[in-house]
Amino acid sequence: MNPRAPRWLPALPALVWARDYRRDTLLRDALAAVIVTLMLIPQSLAYAQLAGLPPEVGLYASVAPLLVYALLGSSRVLAVGPVAVVSLMTAAAVGEHAAAGSAAYLAVAITLAFLSGLILLAMGLLRLGFIAHFLSHPVISGFITASGLLIAASQLKTLLGVSAGGHNLVEMLAAVWAQRGHIHGLTLAIGASSLAFLFWVRRGLQPLLQRLGLSPRAAELAAKAGPVAAIVGATVFAWAIDAGAHGVKLVGAVPQGLPPLTQPLWDVALWQSLLVPALLISVVGFVESVSVGQTLAAKRRQRIEPDQELVALGGSNLAAAFSGGFPVTGGFARSVVNFDAGAQTPAAGVFTAVGILFASLLLTPALFHLPQATLAATIVVAVLSLVDFGMLRRTWVYAKADFTAVLATLVVTLAAGVESGLVAGVGLSLLLHLWRTSQPHIAEVGQVPGTEHYRNVQRHTVITQPAVLALRMDESLYFANARALEDRINAAVAERPALRHVVLQCSAINDIDASALDSLEAINQRLRDAGLQLHLSEVKGPVMDKLQRSDFLRHLSGRVWLTHHQAACALAAAEG
Amino acid sequence: MNPRAPRWLPALPALVWARDYRRDTLLRDALAAVIVTLMLIPQSLAYAQLAGLPPEVGLYASVAPLLVYALLGSSRVLAVGPVAVVSLMTAAAVGEHAAAGSAAYLAVAITLAFLSGLILLAMGLLRLGFIAHFLSHPVISGFITASGLLIAASQLKTLLGVSAGGHNLVEMLAAVWAQRGHIHGLTLAIGASSLAFLFWVRRGLQPLLQRLGLSPRAAELAAKAGPVAAIVGATVFAWAIDAGAHGVKLVGAVPQGLPPLTQPLWDVALWQSLLVPALLISVVGFVESVSVGQTLAAKRRQRIEPDQELVALGGSNLAAAFSGGFPVTGGFARSVVNFDAGAQTPAAGVFTAVGILFASLLLTPALFHLPQATLAATIVVAVLSLVDFGMLRRTWVYAKADFTAVLATLVVTLAAGVESGLVAGVGLSLLLHLWRTSQPHIAEVGQVPGTEHYRNVQRHTVITQPAVLALRMDESLYFANARALEDRINAAVAERPALRHVVLQCSAINDIDASALDSLEAINQRLRDAGLQLHLSEVKGPVMDKLQRSDFLRHLSGRVWLTHHQAACALAAAEG
Repeated sequence: MNPRAPRWLPALPALVWARDYRRDTLLRDALAAVIVTLMLIPQSLAYAQLAGLPPEVGLYASVAPLLVYALLGSSRVLAVGPVAVVSLMTAAAVGEHAAAGSAAYLAVAITLAFLSGLILLAMGLLRLGFIAHFLSHPVISGFITASGLLIAASQLKTLLGVSAGGHNLVEMLAAVWAQRGHIHGLTLAIGASSLAFLFWVRRGLQPLLQRLGLSPRAAELAAKAGPVAAIVGATVFAWAIDAGAHGVKLVGAVPQGLPPLTQPLWDVALWQSLLVPALLISVVGFVESVSVGQTLAAKRRQRIEPDQELVALGGSNLAAAFSGGFPVTGGFARSVVNFDAGAQTPAAGVFTAVGILFASLLLTPALFHLPQATLAATIVVAVLSLVDFGMLRRTWVYAKADFTAVLATLVVTLAAGVESGLVAGVGLSLLLHLWRTSQPHIAEVGQVPGTEHYRNVQRHTVITQPAVLALRMDESLYFANARALEDRINAAVAERPALRHVVLQCSAINDIDASALDSLEAINQRLRDAGLQLHLSEVKGPVMDKLQRSDFLRHLSGRVWLTHHQAACALAAAEG
Repeated sequence: MNPRAPRWLPALPALVWARDYRRDTLLRDALAAVIVTLMLIPQSLAYAQLAGLPPEVGLYASVAPLLVYALLGSSRVLAVGPVAVVSLMTAAAVGEHAAAGSAAYLAVAITLAFLSGLILLAMGLLRLGFIAHFLSHPVISGFITASGLLIAASQLKTLLGVSAGGHNLVEMLAAVWAQRGHIHGLTLAIGASSLAFLFWVRRGLQPLLQRLGLSPRAAELAAKAGPVAAIVGATVFAWAIDAGAHGVKLVGAVPQGLPPLTQPLWDVALWQSLLVPALLISVVGFVESVSVGQTLAAKRRQRIEPDQELVALGGSNLAAAFSGGFPVTGGFARSVVNFDAGAQTPAAGVFTAVGILFASLLLTPALFHLPQATLAATIVVAVLSLVDFGMLRRTWVYAKADFTAVLATLVVTLAAGVESGLVAGVGLSLLLHLWRTSQPHIAEVGQVPGTEHYRNVQRHTVITQPAVLALRMDESLYFANARALEDRINAAVAERPALRHVVLQCSAINDIDASALDSLEAINQRLRDAGLQLHLSEVKGPVMDKLQRSDFLRHLSGRVWLTHHQAACALAAAEG
């Protein structure tokens, strides 16, 4: 199933599936490609607009990257291209360096895709995919929800036909509010109708198609192409009434042709200032891509290789940079559609790329009369499905630390932008994790009568011995919590003059670092000075291996016991 | 033993020991105070010189802080005052803002003591003592060793009688080397003799005194006062030959009198730039103080309260700031001497303060002819005992992550100074800890024949079932490692078509955060989609409490088993 190249060589998963490629696979892939192409055309145009780029750039970013991903990707069904959150992050990063709409803006966006591609490729070749694990789910959830709200707010001005700016939610809403006297009625009418139609497509089109006789699956897939209908309808309407002459902003002239050959700006100072945004875009894109890839692969008992995905996404972004595109990643919605439509192999991605290529060759003149407000409506409907306040409620019930991380990420992202929000969320969740492990649960345990089990004296009725203190440390011992154990033992020894033995049950200790080893040595020494013995029980193999490389066991005043019960019995006998 | 004030009130431990104060306690405390005073006079002068301050400031810093500590401190024997590492950090921090020797320099040092006092007091009242736990032992060890080397190098110029600067080890050594043509012979002779005498005092004086008939303990204590002999001898010699006239730098005129009433500079911009150094000084001072305090308290089965120690050290530093001193903390060497000399209560500290007060009132004229080179020799001998390269060897053998932390702290401190070294060390050790827990040990377990034990299939000969995958996760499940479990299970499911059940043994899982809960839900869902069941066994009480607050258990495709053996038996029976 999964023959691998030597670990130092990037694998070419395409060699695996291409070998068994057959006619019926081709047909299924082609059908899926048609549906995904219809879905991807409006998305590509809209996300280019969200990123502040000309619409054709969105089409270009949906050709070469798909071809490269088909060659390198380990997921059978992932569909790459522009996605909402990454487009928002692109706009935020590029906006620092150039004015939207300028040639420099596009050149910086291309450079950002190039850097992001290099970073992803390097992470993949160095097998650094684990970096993405430091984005906790609360942080991702808070970030995605905030991004959805920011994106929706950023489209308000286009829906209303006003000019407004703003770098955070409050600024954006205030700027639009200040322009409330200048709302363009016809634009608002087109935008609102597009919104209403698209929301109806989401809810009402599938039942309607089913009532009209389509199978549930066909109806569901056809409904996914609904945005195309909105775009065709709005374009025809705008052409018919000559909306541009009435002041409705249109997409306008879109160059017709193949994606151009481009290159990034070779400017080291620019690279340095784009490094952090490129890293964040890479990590966020990778996380989105790998989540959907894993979920879909598991449904068919397949799997994806996260490090190979990094290589494939890196290649896709490099391809975007050299073909006039901007940062791309595997999109959630379109990959699910690809899967549901029956795509079997990445060849579906190749066919999709061909479809988009035809669109950019032939279709662009037809886009002249497409109102920007309709694209904005497409974006708003897509991103509002990302907004999920349920995570706040769930984490509030489940764990306050996680709730704090969601809330902080959400608030900082809304107030200070996507990059600050991510950095604050990751930093805070790491601190909260460290804080929690630095406050370990240490239970005093005693024997459950009639068994060999030892449980917390505060939760159970258990038998204890006055001369023996048995403690179970519920955390790996490391520098941030080693002193908590010292404090606990010091306190117990000072309070109980009859104490003669301390037994540390180590079943939940997965590691003991050098600081904790020093602490254990200090505890052992102090107990010895005070005439007490320190014992360990149920030490795990890997921890025991480590302890045997130190002097600790030679100085230990007591013994290491295989089970806690053996220790308790032997000490009870010795103390009479 | 340990009556406590309400938790929101700072306790006054002095009320406890003062109640039982008796005549024989008084005599023991007084004797200890005499010895500590003799030790503290040269140290106070030397550490003031190390901090770039006039010698009398060292004496002032050893009066009021001791009185406050005696009132507030929870250790019976801790001796506070200027210490080497904190003095070096003071010099580094204050040197950024004023020229050494200027009035502004002293004012900034006083402000630093004030801020450090406020920080310590706040940490104590807010019970934030755990912050100090994030200084791991490898970081402390690397930092102390590097500081010792830096301090010794900084005294070279004084020992040789040349002018030289430098902010790191290489710069200091290079600056001294560049001045090698200007070495002052008589200064070098005095410095070298002082060094030789002090090293001999450390090694040879105690045996000599024992041969002369003193008891070993008396000989040991008398030897601790050796530096006073060096200072008296060097002063008399320098006076006799009028060394000052021959170009030997002397301490010179030291004001005679009580510690002055001073106050910090009320300058918010200065406070802001001193905040980080003050925080680092506070944490380092607290760690040094609490380590020695705990070690000594445990020897008499007493204990100290870390949060109360913060309050006491905060008060001591505020006292230093208002009485012409600089940052102080509990010193290692002098506390051990105090303990060995038989100090019973903090009253010994009060008597020591009185002794130093007399010295600053009466003794200062006698210090005029004291050569600075002799003070430098005192410092060098004291700090070289801090240098410990053994930690490098021990951590290399014990754990490479800890070794990396020691080495990085050592190198960065030597190359870029004390503050960078600490920050780099703490940051690196946190990252290494996170990295380790993000790469958890996940063992596949099987039944040890004839027992109810389940062990790692790679370490033991065990019985497994083809339809059941039993995994033991040796780490709490949190965001950074949750995906590792997903990957492991995905891989196993893809490789073993016969698999029907996955059982996760949770005995070493001390927490499951919201990300890990999502991962478990995703694993459960994917296994269900592929026709497999997920089971948990041996889930701890606190973790079970948390899971019951979520939906997870309702969606779980398998069961939660009390013991792993029950799960294995039931699944074997079910699969026939």
